[in-house]
Amino acid sequence: MFKFGIGEIMNYIGKMVEIVFRNALKEDEIKGTILPSSTDKTYILKLKNGYNVGILKENIVIIKETQEKMETIETIKEKKVSQDINKPKVLIFSVGGTIASKIDYNTGGVSAQFSADDLLNLIPELKSLANIEAYSFSNLLSENITSKHWEEIAKAVYKKIKDGEYKGIIITHGTDTLHYTSGALSFLLNGTNIPIILVGAQRSSDRPSSDSTYNLLGAVKFILESKKGGVFVSLHSGNSDNEINIILGTRARKMHSSKRDAFKSINKGIVAKVIFDLRNIKNSKVEFFEAYNELNSEQKLTEPGKLNNKVYLLKFFPGQDPQIISYLKKEGYKIVIIEGTGLGHVADNFIDFIRKEKDIVFFMTVQTIYGRTNMGVYSTGIKLKDAGVIELKDMLSEVAFVKGQHVLGKTDKKAEIIDLMTKPLFFEMGNRTEE
Amino acid sequence: MFKFGIGEIMNYIGKMVEIVFRNALKEDEIKGTILPSSTDKTYILKLKNGYNVGILKENIVIIKETQEKMETIETIKEKKVSQDINKPKVLIFSVGGTIASKIDYNTGGVSAQFSADDLLNLIPELKSLANIEAYSFSNLLSENITSKHWEEIAKAVYKKIKDGEYKGIIITHGTDTLHYTSGALSFLLNGTNIPIILVGAQRSSDRPSSDSTYNLLGAVKFILESKKGGVFVSLHSGNSDNEINIILGTRARKMHSSKRDAFKSINKGIVAKVIFDLRNIKNSKVEFFEAYNELNSEQKLTEPGKLNNKVYLLKFFPGQDPQIISYLKKEGYKIVIIEGTGLGHVADNFIDFIRKEKDIVFFMTVQTIYGRTNMGVYSTGIKLKDAGVIELKDMLSEVAFVKGQHVLGKTDKKAEIIDLMTKPLFFEMGNRTEE
Repeated sequence: MFKFGIGEIMNYIGKMVEIVFRNALKEDEIKGTILPSSTDKTYILKLKNGYNVGILKENIVIIKETQEKMETIETIKEKKVSQDINKPKVLIFSVGGTIASKIDYNTGGVSAQFSADDLLNLIPELKSLANIEAYSFSNLLSENITSKHWEEIAKAVYKKIKDGEYKGIIITHGTDTLHYTSGALSFLLNGTNIPIILVGAQRSSDRPSSDSTYNLLGAVKFILESKKGGVFVSLHSGNSDNEINIILGTRARKMHSSKRDAFKSINKGIVAKVIFDLRNIKNSKVEFFEAYNELNSEQKLTEPGKLNNKVYLLKFFPGQDPQIISYLKKEGYKIVIIEGTGLGHVADNFIDFIRKEKDIVFFMTVQTIYGRTNMGVYSTGIKLKDAGVIELKDMLSEVAFVKGQHVLGKTDKKAEIIDLMTKPLFFEMGNRTEE
Repeated sequence: MFKFGIGEIMNYIGKMVEIVFRNALKEDEIKGTILPSSTDKTYILKLKNGYNVGILKENIVIIKETQEKMETIETIKEKKVSQDINKPKVLIFSVGGTIASKIDYNTGGVSAQFSADDLLNLIPELKSLANIEAYSFSNLLSENITSKHWEEIAKAVYKKIKDGEYKGIIITHGTDTLHYTSGALSFLLNGTNIPIILVGAQRSSDRPSSDSTYNLLGAVKFILESKKGGVFVSLHSGNSDNEINIILGTRARKMHSSKRDAFKSINKGIVAKVIFDLRNIKNSKVEFFEAYNELNSEQKLTEPGKLNNKVYLLKFFPGQDPQIISYLKKEGYKIVIIEGTGLGHVADNFIDFIRKEKDIVFFMTVQTIYGRTNMGVYSTGIKLKDAGVIELKDMLSEVAFVKGQHVLGKTDKKAEIIDLMTKPLFFEMGNRTEE
């Protein structure tokens, strides 16, 4: 063994080291290979089990190079993956996105596909927890996903649920529109008796700080311990590796372009939190919250219907020309979800355009994201309601948009549309009057 | 004096009481009239000085009714308001909104206008701090504000700045679109040597918890202590009464439909925090932050130009029909601000439409709100850039929209538009690569 001082991280990249570091009250030891770090304040260590761990430089007491050879992804890949068929079966259903890419630590290159074996090699703890099966549905960038894909994904996942083989299904998906898809599946697969969890990654796997490992493990942990079904989203709850949030599919929203904890649960609490024990994944815990208790296991899953994409999501802005309403009418839109200002307002000059278009059903959401419509407080809200605008309270505009497609797939009768839109299916609308 | 127990709040409404309550380490005493409260956990007390204070019921030790008569708004109104002309002059420029309404505690009714005298009677501390002048510009609901109003407000405020009489100008404005207006004024009045502060209120003044008093006092306190100019927004930083944030006009966004701390500073820190001493407003402190230090007092104010409203703010959603681009072209829009997904993406089928419309300049912002565009990471971003889309990094889409109007008011040449849009004027765009 060779001992060297605590210098610049760059000098140690690729070296297998033993580090003694201060950990709250005591000193602790860890072994791994130094990876490139985006800051010189933190050492990123790739552990033997495949995880990356960050250690603050200021907490390091001793760093020693070892002569041990780290297994590379390539050497791991040659191993035969054997799974324990007695463990609960979990399906990983891959739609695409950053999470579907993986790193080759020898070349630094990124490959955009993974197989079940690849995945198990990269994240060996998966097989210690469950009997993993993988299904490659597509390799779509999530910005290209449309309602046709939602229909197809729902149909395929529905079949897998009906198989009755799985304790839960994980859908890997790009994060750009993951919250639109989670909304759509919440409606299309409403009543599922097993958890369906959308998992994304914010960091492409060619970076040492990729979050895909923990997001996936968090989803599996939740699946193993949940006694209830539903559609959820699983991503980091903070910047540290050791906590994953499970969010209702209708309450998730991407609130940061790049942070690992980009997904927030809006206007409702999270379902559960998975708290990892980074040394022994089996000791990790799932903490359940109020929203989990509210899950109804009595609902019945039915074959997912069709979506009708004649729904427009219209963000209002000051001085906007209300002629846009006439355009939307001409293009055949049947539902317009308005993202209004404040408690659900648009300019006065929109009101007559809205009142006139009897073929379109108008719904109101808020562009503040947090909070809810309350169209009885100011004159504008009252006038808009009188013109026929229906308020969707605390429903996210993105979720209202996909719900519109779901509802329009079932009926084209105005009264029925309004009735279905304002009847909560999966926690997308609450009655809170929080201020 | 009559002493009574700690029962239901409803029984005490309108009574003048003395309360002894636990306050961190010691007991404290306060006197005032009990107002209606939205929760039975908190007593709302109207103090003699006009403020409302909330006291948690569980902290109350003794509550005693007094025989003193509280001055009502009506009795206060009869007083002659005298101001100290030697104090710094602050102008309150009223555009409208909730903050311009006030309560009559005798009738419970709300009147939608206020005069300088009304304001000084309602908030007597204003005159202990400054020599307040009021100017009633309009009584607009902020959802009805357009670029024409922004031009007129800027012109009127410009004249008031040029008068040289004021230490600062407060613009009272509805909160719905306050952040659009603060963006517009940041560009139109760029280089102001005095603080121009937009102030709104989230609670209509017919409620005991109205925030207008503190938002106004916070703005005045900042004006008195600031040595630099700029356009800012002043609203509650949290749910408690005692902290007000001063946010850059290009960084504020309404992030909650109704909470008093609805306005957040996005992708950049606040300029200052005003921390109130609720017993003696003169002892309140202004804490300055990094963003204050960055303010440049060397800039020169020029007469505000015209705005050109041929700018469209387009929120992308999955499966959106790219034909909307042809419609915007037909309607004569010159700039389209796209609110893309993730790091600044739209579906592949938009790319050809964008490439084709040579008369429109396309800019990209992120619908995640937090974070920034980064169009060099994924293939979609790279292809969009190649098609001519310009990324606006961490600029808020609402601010990009108003900046587009400002830039288009100056030039219609594509290269100049791009140059002006991507050159920061007042902190609307940074170069952080935060993850």
